[in-house]
Amino acid sequence: MELLEICKKAKETRQQTAVLSTNQKNEALYAVADRLVRQQDALIAANNTDMENGRKNGMPEGLLDRLKINESRIAQMAEGLRQIAGLEDPIGEVISMKKRPNGLVIGQKRVPLGVIGIIYESRPNVTADAFGLCFKTGNTVILRGGKDAVCSNQAIVEAIRAALKEQKLPEDAISFITDTSRETAREFMHMNEYVDVLIPRGGAGLIHTVVNNATIPVIETGTGNCHIYVDESADFDMALDIIFNAKTQRIGVCNACESLLIHEKIADAFVPLLKKRLSEKSVEIRADEKIIGILGEDEYTVPASEEDWGTEYLDYIVSAKTVASVDEAVSHINRYHTGHSDAIVTKDYASAQKFLNEVDAAAVYVNASTRFTDGFEFGFGAEIGISTQKLHARGPMGLPALTSTKYIIYGNGQIRP
Amino acid sequence: MELLEICKKAKETRQQTAVLSTNQKNEALYAVADRLVRQQDALIAANNTDMENGRKNGMPEGLLDRLKINESRIAQMAEGLRQIAGLEDPIGEVISMKKRPNGLVIGQKRVPLGVIGIIYESRPNVTADAFGLCFKTGNTVILRGGKDAVCSNQAIVEAIRAALKEQKLPEDAISFITDTSRETAREFMHMNEYVDVLIPRGGAGLIHTVVNNATIPVIETGTGNCHIYVDESADFDMALDIIFNAKTQRIGVCNACESLLIHEKIADAFVPLLKKRLSEKSVEIRADEKIIGILGEDEYTVPASEEDWGTEYLDYIVSAKTVASVDEAVSHINRYHTGHSDAIVTKDYASAQKFLNEVDAAAVYVNASTRFTDGFEFGFGAEIGISTQKLHARGPMGLPALTSTKYIIYGNGQIRP
Repeated sequence: MELLEICKKAKETRQQTAVLSTNQKNEALYAVADRLVRQQDALIAANNTDMENGRKNGMPEGLLDRLKINESRIAQMAEGLRQIAGLEDPIGEVISMKKRPNGLVIGQKRVPLGVIGIIYESRPNVTADAFGLCFKTGNTVILRGGKDAVCSNQAIVEAIRAALKEQKLPEDAISFITDTSRETAREFMHMNEYVDVLIPRGGAGLIHTVVNNATIPVIETGTGNCHIYVDESADFDMALDIIFNAKTQRIGVCNACESLLIHEKIADAFVPLLKKRLSEKSVEIRADEKIIGILGEDEYTVPASEEDWGTEYLDYIVSAKTVASVDEAVSHINRYHTGHSDAIVTKDYASAQKFLNEVDAAAVYVNASTRFTDGFEFGFGAEIGISTQKLHARGPMGLPALTSTKYIIYGNGQIRP
Repeated sequence: MELLEICKKAKETRQQTAVLSTNQKNEALYAVADRLVRQQDALIAANNTDMENGRKNGMPEGLLDRLKINESRIAQMAEGLRQIAGLEDPIGEVISMKKRPNGLVIGQKRVPLGVIGIIYESRPNVTADAFGLCFKTGNTVILRGGKDAVCSNQAIVEAIRAALKEQKLPEDAISFITDTSRETAREFMHMNEYVDVLIPRGGAGLIHTVVNNATIPVIETGTGNCHIYVDESADFDMALDIIFNAKTQRIGVCNACESLLIHEKIADAFVPLLKKRLSEKSVEIRADEKIIGILGEDEYTVPASEEDWGTEYLDYIVSAKTVASVDEAVSHINRYHTGHSDAIVTKDYASAQKFLNEVDAAAVYVNASTRFTDGFEFGFGAEIGISTQKLHARGPMGLPALTSTKYIIYGNGQIRP
């Protein structure tokens, strides 16, 4: 189908999906989950085509693994949809309702965004997940996946559409752009008349392309150069546990710690303990002069360059710097971080408050690991992504991030004087 | 000053403005108000230069009037700033705070957006107003006004900066781009590293340009093709009063009514009364066949073309169409409106609920004039504009629309298992 046709149909359909009852939506999510499992042979066959093409084109093993669909991954997709069915439906909630002096009663009601465009890379599970989140919030979704996964994605979308049809619900609640050319992607990013919001899901390059090319409003999920500042008053054991967890529990994620700041007055005592603890996982420390002075240089302790302060390693590497005060720590963080998650370890009331107030990030922690920045850990039951922009949604996004509001006004003949 | 320099300074300064106390901000707003009045001779002199240039360039009277600054307009600007000082400060409010099973206490706190860019047209009062709203919400603001008002705007900005300096507050809380070239404007729209959000204030052309060129997130304030649907069960007097008010009380505004839909079963009885009422203000009716059949054609009653259904006249003109049901009214509205404000006049419960649920607009009314869509009428005490986009803010925007949130997390050593 032509892109324009897809966008028009999605816009027409959004009026139908917006008014579905929670029960209708949940039953459909269960039906889709069942159908994915029932059709698993067809999904795996489609995925085999993508896998073969990937191998032919020399796709690295890591990416092939992300691309792969098997029985257990299909079961996971289905389980994800059932979990979304179990979540509270945010649509229809009236956030506030007040009476004005002229008798008008003005309420603000939660409604779907409308048509959501999702541009994503190779993992086919995003197809089912994105559908579930958008559908539960009454939106219609247009998916534009990567070239590498086009057969898998198309098969998943066909199964979802078939399940919706069976439920007598509009199939166009989900549609898929089969043309994976760049030209079509750019055209899609300019469909302001039909698409209400774009969400890129993937690496920094993809997000950058969407932010720079789209005229449709974008919800930007960003990278994380997360900092931990060890204050003069910190409990050393707590600091070591938090740093070890935030740096090494999972290295490839946006809420992993990438940079350490240490109060200079405790550096002599703390830094050797830090080195010892991080050596358990062979973490390389890229350090400032003072820390190098304490530790000396070795295979895992090397001098930092200016570039290191701004780098998200996603690896067993961390930068480390001494600072003279919590103020210096805050300034350094606000200069070099990506506004994702930053933590202080301290026993001091004033330092904790200053850090919470002045660090300009989506999530700011006192005495806890940055790894908690996550929709599930925050208790949302789902996660669309973690927003590092300030508009609309900031931090981990649950279902309400896929909603808008409208004012509903009850009158009895009021006119403006 | 160079654009890049301005943007860098604004970003540095946002950390200072973000942590000002409400008292500091209010005292500064009063000081700025006083200074504008004290310096009125200088402001009027600067404005005279703009006015002379305008006359030389053949600026029409209407625009010259919008450009003009005099004593009373300066008094209004000052009064506007004092009113903003009187409003509640949204910054620092903790919207929710909950304890997780692992003991983490997670709160969501209202914080400034950061650096706000405002691109606007000729009215110099926007300069003081935009500063007041942004400053009260702890943001720094970069203004890019129109070429026609450059001397006036610069004089106002200088006065504001001088007042801030006198208060020992950072002058760079407000800055002004003196270079009014298009190239600089476009460059400004790509300063994602320094500017958190752009708000265009002006006509459809300006907004369109910003939406299509900016890579910075934009809060879009749109046009209003507002509809009123007169249901079969409507009280005729109420319908006539509401339509007369919404169409004629002020014609040049985005919440004025531009299109009428009338249930076909009441058309014969209602349409002649409508014609009579609208003729009091010589309103031209562009009508469908059925209405022309009832009224006949005359100077003020002419057949509508397809284009009329989508037109915002901002004039003594209204389009009018009969419909067979509330469903048809809702579909027509969702197809042709701009998503601003739409109203139903009805006595029927089901029609009222259907209209409220299914019309996809920022403000949906039962039995009231669309003219109430306004920050002051909604009780916000201020208005940044009326958003017709669905992201971040929708409908009239008060001070909270200029804020973001951040998660603050209190731990006692939690690490992720």
